[in-house]
Amino acid sequence: MKKLINDPLNVADELLDGLVDAYNGDCKSVGKRSIVKTDIPDGKVALLVGGGSGHEPIYHGLVGRNLADGAACGDIFAAPPPNIVFEATEAVDRGKGVLYLYGNYAGDVLNFDLGAELSDDEDIDVRTVLIWDDVCSAPPTEKDKRRGIAGLVPVVKLVGAASQTAATLDELEAAAKKAVLMTRSVGVSMSPGSIPATGKPTFELDEALIGLGMGIHGEPGVAEIPMTTADELTEKMLELIFEDFEKDEEVDALAEGDEILLFVNSLGATTMMELLIALRKAKAILTERGIKIYDVIVGPLVTCQEMSGISFSFTKMDDELKGYWDMPCQSNCYSKMEGRNGG
Amino acid sequence: MKKLINDPLNVADELLDGLVDAYNGDCKSVGKRSIVKTDIPDGKVALLVGGGSGHEPIYHGLVGRNLADGAACGDIFAAPPPNIVFEATEAVDRGKGVLYLYGNYAGDVLNFDLGAELSDDEDIDVRTVLIWDDVCSAPPTEKDKRRGIAGLVPVVKLVGAASQTAATLDELEAAAKKAVLMTRSVGVSMSPGSIPATGKPTFELDEALIGLGMGIHGEPGVAEIPMTTADELTEKMLELIFEDFEKDEEVDALAEGDEILLFVNSLGATTMMELLIALRKAKAILTERGIKIYDVIVGPLVTCQEMSGISFSFTKMDDELKGYWDMPCQSNCYSKMEGRNGG
Repeated sequence: MKKLINDPLNVADELLDGLVDAYNGDCKSVGKRSIVKTDIPDGKVALLVGGGSGHEPIYHGLVGRNLADGAACGDIFAAPPPNIVFEATEAVDRGKGVLYLYGNYAGDVLNFDLGAELSDDEDIDVRTVLIWDDVCSAPPTEKDKRRGIAGLVPVVKLVGAASQTAATLDELEAAAKKAVLMTRSVGVSMSPGSIPATGKPTFELDEALIGLGMGIHGEPGVAEIPMTTADELTEKMLELIFEDFEKDEEVDALAEGDEILLFVNSLGATTMMELLIALRKAKAILTERGIKIYDVIVGPLVTCQEMSGISFSFTKMDDELKGYWDMPCQSNCYSKMEGRNGG
Repeated sequence: MKKLINDPLNVADELLDGLVDAYNGDCKSVGKRSIVKTDIPDGKVALLVGGGSGHEPIYHGLVGRNLADGAACGDIFAAPPPNIVFEATEAVDRGKGVLYLYGNYAGDVLNFDLGAELSDDEDIDVRTVLIWDDVCSAPPTEKDKRRGIAGLVPVVKLVGAASQTAATLDELEAAAKKAVLMTRSVGVSMSPGSIPATGKPTFELDEALIGLGMGIHGEPGVAEIPMTTADELTEKMLELIFEDFEKDEEVDALAEGDEILLFVNSLGATTMMELLIALRKAKAILTERGIKIYDVIVGPLVTCQEMSGISFSFTKMDDELKGYWDMPCQSNCYSKMEGRNGG
């Protein structure tokens, strides 16, 4: 794989510099490796995201207008260390506390928790909500074992909007917990990405197989199945999401008349063409069940280099979440006008 | 290459159906293979784009709010035939005429011109502005031989905004000619994409080489050069854009104090990580020359399946173009809030 880079050991820092340049003044670099909005109003309840680099445009691409206030960035596929989390926390805090919102991976949890302790020492109020949308990584009774995958995009978009008006950290935490609880994803991989510093593949997968439920780094899913058509695969994947809403006692099953936000994500090399073909089948399945699509996100937003694969995420919407969704937003990862398509 | 498709001969139609689904009511399918906004006001001067499928999210992804009113879509890597161009023209016309705005490829020109004749027979006033931003495809004195590549994204964004307020087709044509004249791109490819129906590569390129100035289908550029670093390649590519502004008698050379819109595009498999690393170097080069970045677009927007490669596009901005840029827009390909980053 020919990668357009300079020093292979310096890609995380260089891409972060480029990200700041892409924001053209809206965001700045802080400390060792964080990106923070230039203009965070006094008294705002702050939202901090973060995670390993190499998955661009997430996570640091979700800093922006009506989105996250900052991101603590790790090296390639590595959690941000506690000092970076702390530097980012200090930089976004405006006296009302900071909500940490990130994907549930052991390394991230460890490091963000240590960052929270450092912040506590400085009397910064920190709360954590983990994103665990990957239904293939553990049953609904063991959500603490689930990974955060593409669902983090709708979740951060919704919580970023909520953070514009939240009066307290409690209020923002509650909005975040709801957004996470209502968001479920299933992903597959067809072929691995590569590690930028070495060019080595991130995992191995037989040419004729699809990893159903495989995580974004190649973590095991529910099965390896033969390569199939877009329509058949979409059906299998959506079935897993429907089942999860059914089995989970914390939420109602998806039923006729419900409205969802639908996110179709590419893990990297899977093209928009393929995403749209799969989206077409997802729409047909949802229509048959009488489930309405409130709005759609589609694109390569949660990636693992040139990994090929696709994920579907559903967020079950209510009036509160619709209000958050309709707010416009602007960032490297995701931007939208006010309102919604079809609105 | 494992592609997530169904019938390999039906991908263009299926992806177009999915695109309509993605718009969730904002756009509809018209005739054999066009996509058109659901709500085009009476008396609006209409903007029609189009071209071959397989390059998603362009061209049909640029239909949307404050963007194009419709797109005439061809099969994979093929121009839309005249009847499709005509059907799209009829569907977007609101009595004030239709501007055709698309990339300069012989097949597209032939078919859109025949579509214009069919439209003329029905008394629909049609004007054509070709996009020819690829400076490596012919010298400035032979712009009619230049290809349209990634520059079509900023051009359509600007002209889409202009079309919201243009009183006449003449006025919109003038805005489009200015946006095209001010936009110049240079692209490279590192490896080919594949043809969805066959899985065959779109072209051949030695593993150790980069096609400097290569077109988005693998058309010849200015040279095949050894694989190099992001910084060196960015320098070479930007030099070609600067030179083109210098040599072209129709525009002024880029000088200190000028402002540009900077677009860093991925041809497909090249990651956001790589785009940001290259963007970082581009910003440094521009800063050294005293050229300001008005705003930035960055992402895989003009693609050729899983082709790897990158392009830079500059649009030299003036007050009129800034006004168009600042308008928000929403589509499958590109969305933004009002204003600009750093504004």
